[in-house]
Amino acid sequence: MTFDIKTTDPNSNARAGVIQTDHGQILTPIFMPVGTAGSVKAVHQRELKEDINAQIILGNTYHLYLRPGLDIIEKAGGLHKFNGWDKPILTDSGGYQVYSLSGTGRKIKEEGVTFKSHIDGSKHIFTPEKVMDIQRTIGADIIMAFDECTPYPCEYEYARESMEMTHRWLKRCCEHFDATEPKYGYSQTLFPIVQGSVYKDLRKKSAEAIAEFGREGNAIGGLSVGEPAEMMYEMTELVTDILPKDKPRYLMGVGTPANILESIALGIDMFDCVMPTRNARNGMLFTTQGVINIRNEKWKDDFSVLDPGLPESYVSSFYTKAYLRHLVKSDEMLGAMIASVHNLTFYLWLVSQARERILNGTFKSWKDRMVVQLMEKL
Amino acid sequence: MTFDIKTTDPNSNARAGVIQTDHGQILTPIFMPVGTAGSVKAVHQRELKEDINAQIILGNTYHLYLRPGLDIIEKAGGLHKFNGWDKPILTDSGGYQVYSLSGTGRKIKEEGVTFKSHIDGSKHIFTPEKVMDIQRTIGADIIMAFDECTPYPCEYEYARESMEMTHRWLKRCCEHFDATEPKYGYSQTLFPIVQGSVYKDLRKKSAEAIAEFGREGNAIGGLSVGEPAEMMYEMTELVTDILPKDKPRYLMGVGTPANILESIALGIDMFDCVMPTRNARNGMLFTTQGVINIRNEKWKDDFSVLDPGLPESYVSSFYTKAYLRHLVKSDEMLGAMIASVHNLTFYLWLVSQARERILNGTFKSWKDRMVVQLMEKL
Ligand SMILES: [Zn+2]
Ligand SMILES: [Zn+2]
Repeated sequence: MTFDIKTTDPNSNARAGVIQTDHGQILTPIFMPVGTAGSVKAVHQRELKEDINAQIILGNTYHLYLRPGLDIIEKAGGLHKFNGWDKPILTDSGGYQVYSLSGTGRKIKEEGVTFKSHIDGSKHIFTPEKVMDIQRTIGADIIMAFDECTPYPCEYEYARESMEMTHRWLKRCCEHFDATEPKYGYSQTLFPIVQGSVYKDLRKKSAEAIAEFGREGNAIGGLSVGEPAEMMYEMTELVTDILPKDKPRYLMGVGTPANILESIALGIDMFDCVMPTRNARNGMLFTTQGVINIRNEKWKDDFSVLDPGLPESYVSSFYTKAYLRHLVKSDEMLGAMIASVHNLTFYLWLVSQARERILNGTFKSWKDRMVVQLMEKL
Repeated sequence: MTFDIKTTDPNSNARAGVIQTDHGQILTPIFMPVGTAGSVKAVHQRELKEDINAQIILGNTYHLYLRPGLDIIEKAGGLHKFNGWDKPILTDSGGYQVYSLSGTGRKIKEEGVTFKSHIDGSKHIFTPEKVMDIQRTIGADIIMAFDECTPYPCEYEYARESMEMTHRWLKRCCEHFDATEPKYGYSQTLFPIVQGSVYKDLRKKSAEAIAEFGREGNAIGGLSVGEPAEMMYEMTELVTDILPKDKPRYLMGVGTPANILESIALGIDMFDCVMPTRNARNGMLFTTQGVINIRNEKWKDDFSVLDPGLPESYVSSFYTKAYLRHLVKSDEMLGAMIASVHNLTFYLWLVSQARERILNGTFKSWKDRMVVQLMEKL
């Protein structure tokens, strides 16, 4: 993997870059649709590529490990072959999902984490080494270190100890990753993850420790877990000041359109979030004019298209608000399908617009206007 | 509406024809995907048109009347404008749905049927006149008479009295339809429905009575409701012998691929059925090689495409059996989406193949081979 910064915004820390992988290039800043189980929910692979213009999607180690299982994925020749997505893929380490598993049977020790499958209750253990092996087998282009993602709020002592274990685990991840080979003939790269909850000294310490590893890209985890947005921005700024400028920075699990624009301004290059697809399934649309709750009565006879600001999108410029409202109210699957494609199209439009603005030097003023406009309730 | 028969098969009663409507032509024999609430479940309008090659879809009077409601549909300018499907639409009269409503509050009288909404329990009445008005407002190209669809089994006396009421209702439907105008500037046509359960004398009497009305097309209802296939074919044959040869014949709610081919051989021109989409949602695929239960373990590492016999279809020649099995087992919406598009693509391929075979005189032998091959369990 390589990363080239094309332009740095003179009025913020935003950058426009190009990540090169063996599955093609990614223009940054970029948003990565989440495909937990190897499918971006309610979206065809063709739509991802041709309508949404996705450049990279996420897979989830925990989910794919449990189902379909590594034997199937390896037999297929990796996740790209299995799901037919031939552009870059990034896999979550599964840490976040394992910690989210409700209660019984989950134990975090120095060695790793034992947990029970949410599907059949079977017992499993994830260690840093095993998670590297799993991600080698899944075959993502970018794989994530196995970390502990602390919840919010989180006691200082717990956050510190957890962060220190995450750093020790990172060392094990790197050693194991570097001692193993990719399985399918294309290269993979490992991103470490900064933790430290909302404590400035911990975040600083963690960012310094992570930078020290000198990997090809770096991620910021443990944010967007319930803390106020201002706190998230503060932590992000503090960390981006420390993480190397010449490596891509990935802010995990973020966020709203405004969160994304503000974080781009702080020097973030990569984002992922379930919000566009999850909200879509609840009838919430992000549009170029603001936010729409399509269940609202006001749309029942609004026969205008979903978002005239996205004229090149099939779903956004073809289906009307009244029709989508009808589908969502009627629990028709097509409602979730339309809203999901629309929201992802909007998110990819947003980051491509941000990139254009960075390249032509107008990012800052555009961003300041858009963070207001995009969050308006229509 | 006009109907031209291009060729009649020398070895069966199959015909290849062209129905011309103000929303374009329909090449027969044809299968019509069911879009109950104005959406073919799990399928985008673009997929219907470009991938599945649907030429006409169904809407349902009962469902659309309750939701979104006639005011919305009329404001939109009719169902075509509302859902963005600009090719022909046929609407069910809603009779079948009203009779299927479980128990309480449904009463059939000479005047019409009172029933309670399955959505909010509100009371409504459907009379033949009202159902004509509703379908005028929905704006389907082909609208169906309001009938009583008898269940199977059905006592002779009940079947006879019901049939006679259906004929009286038909008279009221025709009178009201002919006394009213289309609302959106394009013409609509009314198809009457033959009833009579599985009683030969009743079917004969009903077919004769229906033919007498001289409408532009005729339908056969009350079949495919649980009776043996042989009984369905027997009734269909009896009725097609009586219905005018120069008008399209529509066998309602049928059926499996074999049912469709056998009925084409009996002189049927139009079909609809929820089977391809409903079965798709349960992981059942109809393919050019036979039937697949994609949940079956045997497909878990079968990385061949869904149906190499449909090379022009995106979903059928792109997604693999192993991937679809994973999606269906994981309850991923994409599973239902892929299977639905695939099954409908197959059904439309099937009737277009039948048409080609009729046109080139090889239908009968092809049909005899296909009814076996297509129902094989893979
Ligand atoms: Zn998120
Ligand atoms: Zn059926």
